This record gives sequence, C-alpha cells and structure tokens, in this order.
Amino acid sequence: MSNHLPSPREGSGVGLTIIKVGGAVVEDEAQLVQLLRDFTAIEGAKILVHGGGRRATKIAERLGIETKMVDGRRITDTEMLEVVTMVYGGLVNKNVVARLQALGCDAIGLTGADANILLSAKRPPIPSGGAGGGLIDYGFVGDVKQANGTKIAHFIEAGLIPVIAPLTHDGMGHMLNTNADTMASETAKAMAAAGYDVTLIYAFEKPGVLRDADDDNSVIPTINHADFETYKADGTISGGMLPKIENALAAVDAGVKRVIITKATAIDGQHGTMIIQ
Amino acid sequence: MSNHLPSPREGSGVGLTIIKVGGAVVEDEAQLVQLLRDFTAIEGAKILVHGGGRRATKIAERLGIETKMVDGRRITDTEMLEVVTMVYGGLVNKNVVARLQALGCDAIGLTGADANILLSAKRPPIPSGGAGGGLIDYGFVGDVKQANGTKIAHFIEAGLIPVIAPLTHDGMGHMLNTNADTMASETAKAMAAAGYDVTLIYAFEKPGVLRDADDDNSVIPTINHADFETYKADGTISGGMLPKIENALAAVDAGVKRVIITKATAIDGQHGTMIIQ
Repeated sequence: MSNHLPSPREGSGVGLTIIKVGGAVVEDEAQLVQLLRDFTAIEGAKILVHGGGRRATKIAERLGIETKMVDGRRITDTEMLEVVTMVYGGLVNKNVVARLQALGCDAIGLTGADANILLSAKRPPIPSGGAGGGLIDYGFVGDVKQANGTKIAHFIEAGLIPVIAPLTHDGMGHMLNTNADTMASETAKAMAAAGYDVTLIYAFEKPGVLRDADDDNSVIPTINHADFETYKADGTISGGMLPKIENALAAVDAGVKRVIITKATAIDGQHGTMIIQ
Repeated sequence: MSNHLPSPREGSGVGLTIIKVGGAVVEDEAQLVQLLRDFTAIEGAKILVHGGGRRATKIAERLGIETKMVDGRRITDTEMLEVVTMVYGGLVNKNVVARLQALGCDAIGLTGADANILLSAKRPPIPSGGAGGGLIDYGFVGDVKQANGTKIAHFIEAGLIPVIAPLTHDGMGHMLNTNADTMASETAKAMAAAGYDVTLIYAFEKPGVLRDADDDNSVIPTINHADFETYKADGTISGGMLPKIENALAAVDAGVKRVIITKATAIDGQHGTMIIQ
C-alpha cells in the first residue's frame, strides 16, 4: 500500500491514537500477533478497542445457544449476554492484555462498567422497518449515554494503555452488549472533550474506503461531509460503509481530529481513508 | 453471631480492607446481593478478591470439557484455561463490578495481567505425594512471583475499588489460573509493603475457625503462631484449614495487620477468627 495521508491540522492537546479492531483480526492468531506488534509501535498515548463476535458465536454454539442476528446486530438475550460478557470481557480482552504486557505495553483491560467509563441505556424495542411493521427487541444491548473521558485520561496519565471490550453497563447492575465501533467513537469523542488530539483508526479487512469495491488500489484518500454526500448520491459508497462513515463524521464534528478507515495491517496513520470535517 | 474481636494494634498507614470471597457466595444470587451490600458498607479503602470455581465447572461441563481436580485444585489444560479466563475474568468479575457500580462503589475489575498487578510463574509439575511417586502437572496454573502494590495503590488513591479475579499472567503473553486465597494474601502483603494498614478477611461458609467442627458457636477468637502449633498438635485444626491458617500467618509475618477468617455474612471485621503474630 503506497498511499500517504496528508498531515492533519494539529491541535494544542496531547496526541492520542485509538485503534478499533474487529473480531476477525483479534481471533486470528497470525493477524493478532501482527496487530499487537503494530499497536505497540505506535508512539504516544493509545487505546485499543476490540470486538469478538465470531468467538462469541462459536462459544454460544458449543453451549447450545443459538445466535440470532438482525441487520448484522446480535440479539442479546440473558444467555447471550452471559456469553458476550465471558468472551469479550474475559477471553478476548485478557488474552490481548496478557500479550500486550509481554510486548512491554502496560495494558489494562476495561469494560464500560470498570471505573464507570462507559454508561449506557438498554435499547428499547425499535420498529423493524420491515413491511409487516412490528418491533425488534435487541435485548441486553446498550446505547452509550456517557463516556467518562476524565476517568480514561487518568489511566493514560498513569502510563496505562486501555484495552476496551465492547460491553457497557446500565448503572443498575447489568452489563450490556455494545457495538465496538460505537465504543470507539464514543471514547474518541470523550477524549477529545478531555483535551486530547485524538486520531481514531477503524481497522478492518479492506485498505480503506474504495471507489471500486473490487479494486484494493482504489482507496479514496480523504472524505469530508460534501464528498460523502456526493459519493452517497452516485452510489460509490453504500451498504455497511454508510453508517461507518456517518459515525466517523459525527466524531470529527464532535472534536476528534481525524478518523481513518484502514486495513488492520496498516494502522500507522499513514494509510487508508481519512474522514475530515 | 456475637463474638467481637479485639481491636488490632493500629499502624500509621491508611487502613485498607481486603475481602476474599469464594465462588459459592459469588454464584448464589441471594448471598451475592448480601455480600455486596456488606462490602459497600465497609468504610475506607477496600479490595474484593473473588473465586468462581463452581461456575467454571458448570460452563466447562456445558462445553463438554471435563473438570479434573487433584487435592481440591483444578488441573488447567489449554481448554480449561480458556474457561477460567472467560468465567473468572469476564462473567463473574464484570457481574460483580456492574453490581457494585449500581451500589455507588466505583469498582474496577482486574486480573493480574491488567496493569501487570500480579505476575506469576507457571507451576512446574510437582511430585504427586502418592505411594506410586510420579509428577502432577497442574497445567496453566500460576504461582505468584510479584504483586505490584504501588500500582494497586494508584487505583485506590484514585478512588477506585479493585475487584480482583483469580487469574495472573506469566509476562510472556499467557494467562494463568491462580488460587484466589493466594491472590488475596499476595495482594495483602504487597499493600502492607506499600504502607497500608491491611486487614485481610477470608469469607467462607463457617463463622470462623471452630474448636468443634459441628458447633458453629465454638469459634476460636484469635490464633497466633503458638496457638496454631498447639491446635495442630492436638488435632483441633486439620485438613483444608491448615494451609489457610499457614497462609494467614505468613501474611501477618509479612506485615499484614490482621487476617480474619469469618462467615461471608459477617465481614465487618468484628466477627470470626483473627490470625495474629
């Protein structure tokens, strides 16, 4: 990959890089090793936010619990909540933390409940959008209400590297399953509000946002609000990439310096698509 | 229960109470609710160390993984390590953290890997002690090498309440299953070394160390080294209570102000058996 992103406008705050990486990378041994090496090499303050959905699905299957997805989102009943709490908060999170420690990164695994860093509200049943009407109840799924940037900053100032699992709590004693992309963007916004110059990097399987989905060399270097409207209108950007970019634009609007969408093997901030205001 | 323990000698440090509670309490809804209320009521700095073995055994069974115990200790192969990492570090730990948050306790869930607070070494195979000789390999089980009191103190000084799961790491990227009693005593010793006046409370199913195992009213109020030798010689104390008290005496020898062995419903520091130098 040869694209080099332009330097972002620099703020007066301390730089902070937040990497969000999906379950597919975290759960593949070779990819995980590479990712953690690359993450370790990032200079300055940093945070890792991870997924773990595939592993949760596998463990659920072995436990005889059926995984139900609607629009790519997991329906989280009581049993599935136990599975994701175990898998995201325990198995995946602690494995990543132990490996980072071995690489000299002083990692600390956190869910939203830990030190109350991310508080959420259980999502009420929402209209299904289907022809028949009706409601979809996603179950124990949390929509983030409050991310506590000051608390997270305290860990960073102590030299720790937060590794955040996609779980929050409702403040009433319950864990809630929470989308990892949202965990990352809410954390990024809170850290921007706490005075950091935040770079949020979404690492996934493609080298960036592509002009041509079949051509990995067609990465769009930068996308701002106006570009997004154009690409949306002409169909260049569609499907699952739409909410990702909307999310990214909302983050830059809220003070995050830049959001980058890139391949998990290219998280140095120099590659991929940069979303700017 | 009416016994009231004598006031301990007071040191010059800040008071810190460490409660260790086993899986049987944490996994029973009614007992857990009561324990967390009582824990919340403890004044000053505090730490909760929990087990979770029964839950791990149940989940393992559902996953088709056989639980093998030798002398009451779990043999931890690769699959069982995944189970205990999930169950202790995820399911049990985050459930406790979320509930404490709901009670206004700013809890933070930690394993030994998080912020590198407890580093251990994988236990080598040890002689079985049986008539036939041979070795027992406990597998991925950790013997604590180093507890980082300064790091733990940092969380406490920030107003956080550590909730510690019985897992450590080896510094080489692996989690290790670790005895919860040992986690508690090693943490207590490290906090004493960090300048705290530590009270370590082992909460279990009996009201204390009993003169007569069948009489819950026969609690021995205090046991020092000399008492222990006497009780050991005359058979008053035997079996699984022996290593518990040896562990407790080692903790007070290492500077822990007092160790109390008490019922999980009586963790106010006023009941049970106090182990002193």
